[in-house]
Amino acid sequence: MSWTVYLSGEIHTDWREQIEQGVKAAGLDVSFTSAVTHHDASDAAGDHLRDNDNSFWRDHQSSKVNLIRTKTLIEKADLVVVRFGDKYKQWNAAFDAGYCAALGKPYVTLHDDSIIHPLKEVDAQALAWAQTPSQVVDILKYVVAA
Amino acid sequence: MSWTVYLSGEIHTDWREQIEQGVKAAGLDVSFTSAVTHHDASDAAGDHLRDNDNSFWRDHQSSKVNLIRTKTLIEKADLVVVRFGDKYKQWNAAFDAGYCAALGKPYVTLHDDSIIHPLKEVDAQALAWAQTPSQVVDILKYVVAA
Amino acid sequence: MSWTVYLSGEIHTDWREQIEQGVKAAGLDVSFTSAVTHHDASDAAGDHLRDNDNSFWRDHQSSKVNLIRTKTLIEKADLVVVRFGDKYKQWNAAFDAGYCAALGKPYVTLHDDSIIHPLKEVDAQALAWAQTPSQVVDILKYVVAA
Amino acid sequence: MSWTVYLSGEIHTDWREQIEQGVKAAGLDVSFTSAVTHHDASDAAGDHLRDNDNSFWRDHQSSKVNLIRTKTLIEKADLVVVRFGDKYKQWNAAFDAGYCAALGKPYVTLHDDSIIHPLKEVDAQALAWAQTPSQVVDILKYVVAA
Amino acid sequence: MSWTVYLSGEIHTDWREQIEQGVKAAGLDVSFTSAVTHHDASDAAGDHLRDNDNSFWRDHQSSKVNLIRTKTLIEKADLVVVRFGDKYKQWNAAFDAGYCAALGKPYVTLHDDSIIHPLKEVDAQALAWAQTPSQVVDILKYVVAA
Amino acid sequence: MSWTVYLSGEIHTDWREQIEQGVKAAGLDVSFTSAVTHHDASDAAGDHLRDNDNSFWRDHQSSKVNLIRTKTLIEKADLVVVRFGDKYKQWNAAFDAGYCAALGKPYVTLHDDSIIHPLKEVDAQALAWAQTPSQVVDILKYVVAA
Amino acid sequence: MSWTVYLSGEIHTDWREQIEQGVKAAGLDVSFTSAVTHHDASDAAGDHLRDNDNSFWRDHQSSKVNLIRTKTLIEKADLVVVRFGDKYKQWNAAFDAGYCAALGKPYVTLHDDSIIHPLKEVDAQALAWAQTPSQVVDILKYVVAA
Amino acid sequence: MSWTVYLSGEIHTDWREQIEQGVKAAGLDVSFTSAVTHHDASDAAGDHLRDNDNSFWRDHQSSKVNLIRTKTLIEKADLVVVRFGDKYKQWNAAFDAGYCAALGKPYVTLHDDSIIHPLKEVDAQALAWAQTPSQVVDILKYVVAA
Repeated sequence: MSWTVYLSGEIHTDWREQIEQGVKAAGLDVSFTSAVTHHDASDAAGDHLRDNDNSFWRDHQSSKVNLIRTKTLIEKADLVVVRFGDKYKQWNAAFDAGYCAALGKPYVTLHDDSIIHPLKEVDAQALAWAQTPSQVVDILKYVVAA
Repeated sequence: MSWTVYLSGEIHTDWREQIEQGVKAAGLDVSFTSAVTHHDASDAAGDHLRDNDNSFWRDHQSSKVNLIRTKTLIEKADLVVVRFGDKYKQWNAAFDAGYCAALGKPYVTLHDDSIIHPLKEVDAQALAWAQTPSQVVDILKYVVAA
Repeated sequence: MSWTVYLSGEIHTDWREQIEQGVKAAGLDVSFTSAVTHHDASDAAGDHLRDNDNSFWRDHQSSKVNLIRTKTLIEKADLVVVRFGDKYKQWNAAFDAGYCAALGKPYVTLHDDSIIHPLKEVDAQALAWAQTPSQVVDILKYVVAA
Repeated sequence: MSWTVYLSGEIHTDWREQIEQGVKAAGLDVSFTSAVTHHDASDAAGDHLRDNDNSFWRDHQSSKVNLIRTKTLIEKADLVVVRFGDKYKQWNAAFDAGYCAALGKPYVTLHDDSIIHPLKEVDAQALAWAQTPSQVVDILKYVVAA
Repeated sequence: MSWTVYLSGEIHTDWREQIEQGVKAAGLDVSFTSAVTHHDASDAAGDHLRDNDNSFWRDHQSSKVNLIRTKTLIEKADLVVVRFGDKYKQWNAAFDAGYCAALGKPYVTLHDDSIIHPLKEVDAQALAWAQTPSQVVDILKYVVAA
Repeated sequence: MSWTVYLSGEIHTDWREQIEQGVKAAGLDVSFTSAVTHHDASDAAGDHLRDNDNSFWRDHQSSKVNLIRTKTLIEKADLVVVRFGDKYKQWNAAFDAGYCAALGKPYVTLHDDSIIHPLKEVDAQALAWAQTPSQVVDILKYVVAA
Repeated sequence: MSWTVYLSGEIHTDWREQIEQGVKAAGLDVSFTSAVTHHDASDAAGDHLRDNDNSFWRDHQSSKVNLIRTKTLIEKADLVVVRFGDKYKQWNAAFDAGYCAALGKPYVTLHDDSIIHPLKEVDAQALAWAQTPSQVVDILKYVVAA
Repeated sequence: MSWTVYLSGEIHTDWREQIEQGVKAAGLDVSFTSAVTHHDASDAAGDHLRDNDNSFWRDHQSSKVNLIRTKTLIEKADLVVVRFGDKYKQWNAAFDAGYCAALGKPYVTLHDDSIIHPLKEVDAQALAWAQTPSQVVDILKYVVAA
């Protein structure tokens, strides 16, 4: 069986690449999906539809265009990895985790131990908490093994 | 019809009371539910089960006990109001919103305009964005009207 | 058993009142729900949240506030009656019918025979087509009978 | 991932072809489905089963045969585009949109700004409103990108 | 807890009355629902909507009106009893059983041992096969006991 | 798209072969599935598990083994054709139709006009009633067309 | 809100009574349900339907009659407590836990620490592990609090 | 059609190999999945994430990592075979069976006749009870046949 893993959350570090390279090195039959991770492109995803003076509606319009992609890819994934870094609010990552929880979609979190407490509700329904990308790779090596 | 509204998020200001009083003043047939909002009690919700040296497992244990309550009450609610304040990470609030989105459960957000951008994915699936508790009361007056 | 019937569609004639009076006269245990049927109030449902220069976003904001009410009431109804009159586009009525069809929620249509052809897809999944409010009352007398 | 997009609504202009050509030109991995778009064939879809004097039952019979196709294709689509033109009642298009909304199936609308107001309930649950086929192509370019 | 039991199938013997009297005599908190069991009224359920020359459409119209009632009542029932007698085709009873099976709705069958073989697929998903109404009453006494 | 059609019901005439040949002649991308249609093999499907003196349990055991196959194939089908002939009780066919109805799985019936009345509840939720295998082929030609 | 708690598992000690008394003493708005806990009555639940020489079919028949009750009560419960004692196989308790897990129904386990390891898969999806009935009462005091 | 069969339960005998060889010898289009069946590896599945002094949390952590694999594979299987041997508690096997029952996923049990009574609830919802691996192979030969 081929596995599909959706990588949600932080877009300013190379954690996605680390996981993808580790999985590739291990020769696992796993493919990865994610939101569009180019920050400016993502913010502008709906701008071509119409201009908005109001920042709320501009964000609204772009978020919904992004949702066409993310909703579909999350629902098709076999596993979701949700990454929380040390910057920004990252409410979209927590939102994705809640979305997975309600669907019964397995997800694991990836964050360091300084933010255990604020993430306790998110971790409560995760199937694993990893602190490094290589731990996520180790999880995949284990669960994907034939 | 009697409506049940779950109030999720920030526990350090009196927004819940403001909404409840506004609704009471308006004489609406609405009842409110929420997580246990006493911070220390919530953190200690599972402590009576067994002691844990490790903060991750202590939090894990308590979060799951809280989940017995919150999962049930959210699923029984007709509407969820998700409040984001200006402090703390509040990932649990975003998580609840994602949970509602996946269930198709109507939710509205309550936050000021300084955090529009980081909440754009959460607002994208909300049925309204309110900036003040009295706006939430106004929404309820409208939607609950016989 | 008490039945709940949601009345969807046309708001410019008294078809709702005719059905409600017929049911009341028959002494049936049926209660009725519907969207807010005051046209101006409905269009302005979200105006108290924030002003919008743009008519698309004004409509969007109000429609979502209305959705809090209509989505909940449709999902709680035992039967939906969808009325198409001879004026306006009435896409919201067809939308409600499609929503019911996907949920497996029983609905009946109420329209005259001049619009059979354009409503054929809507009628295809309806459990009855009535031409007059009194026919809807007759259906209710029959199906609700102890 | 290969995407499947169902094109619902207006059958008297070439909007489907414009989108298909734009997507082909962009080299996207997208396939398209739709109802049978030949008007007379669609109206006659059930005629071979038995003759009907009554226009209601003739339409009923054909609509259900069409439903075998459309229900299946909509449920298998990753995205539905719902087109409203400037003629006819087009209740079937609004019906499809409501069907998608209840399924949680992403859909976008395609219509010009003269009909914003009557489509407000349909647009309220759409993930985007496009005014031209090329805007739909732009959305697909963005969401389908690897 | 109060139990609701839907009684499906044969309408030409008094098996419903026997079960209802047995349950009443036992003082159980059970209420009963069923289709309209007056044969002629049931066949004519849609006649007030419009006349049909064609017997197929007349039956179709009435069956759908009956469905408003039966679909709702079956879905609300805690248990369905499906009775097969020794006359008629009784495909509607088998249809109801299949409907229950797909919903995961518990049902029991009531028939004598002369029709075990043709009912084997229906009995395969039933939670009990009773041969007499008093056996159904015994089942209810057991399962409903506080 | 490739379509899968499950053929349910009568096993004593060659209606399955007629449909399959018609579809093959038309070059449609349709594959067919069905229960095991060899009568004696089907009745004996569970006999290798253990002997049963009692005919009820022998039938029960075999029916459940058959269910492993039929339940899976029906749920994977895009369309189900349910055939009623002029012999036997055929409750399994009506059961399959009810199963499809509850799942929202499209099905069509195939029977002659002498049994319209006893099949009215089964036909009420079918998307078509065909009287001959060639009419089923015609339906498939229409709905499967690219 | 009134809570309903289903008590699953061991029937040879008084853990149910301990929980019920603790809850009563605390004045909580909780009602309890469970399988029929009289061992002999449960084993004989289907005996009145027909005699069986074969122990497999006797057990089968009775288990299904019990299922009418247990399936319904578990699905209606807000919380399930699953008790594992130190005797017997207790596969039915683990089965109930798996049933809850698939439904997304919250459950907690009640067992001592000598059987942590064999219950690890059951505990993995539980929202709490209690070692004594009074700990279950404490959980209820917390989660049910207004 | 290719079938996928998940093999759940006992890991200390070669029943999986017997089934796989029998199926291979018969040339059936069936593929098999299962949990990681190496006992020590399974117990240590989460150890690389962090060390735990406490055996409960060590087991909890590993069980959840295993769940990423087992939950996904069970949900993708067409049939689950649940094996109970004569040693150990095997609550995970009963848990998997309950999980399947709630999903409506077909499963068969494989156990000898000495444990009929304690497995009666598990067998009640199974589609077959086999006593030997070769009987499971026979079931597959029958249900998978083209």
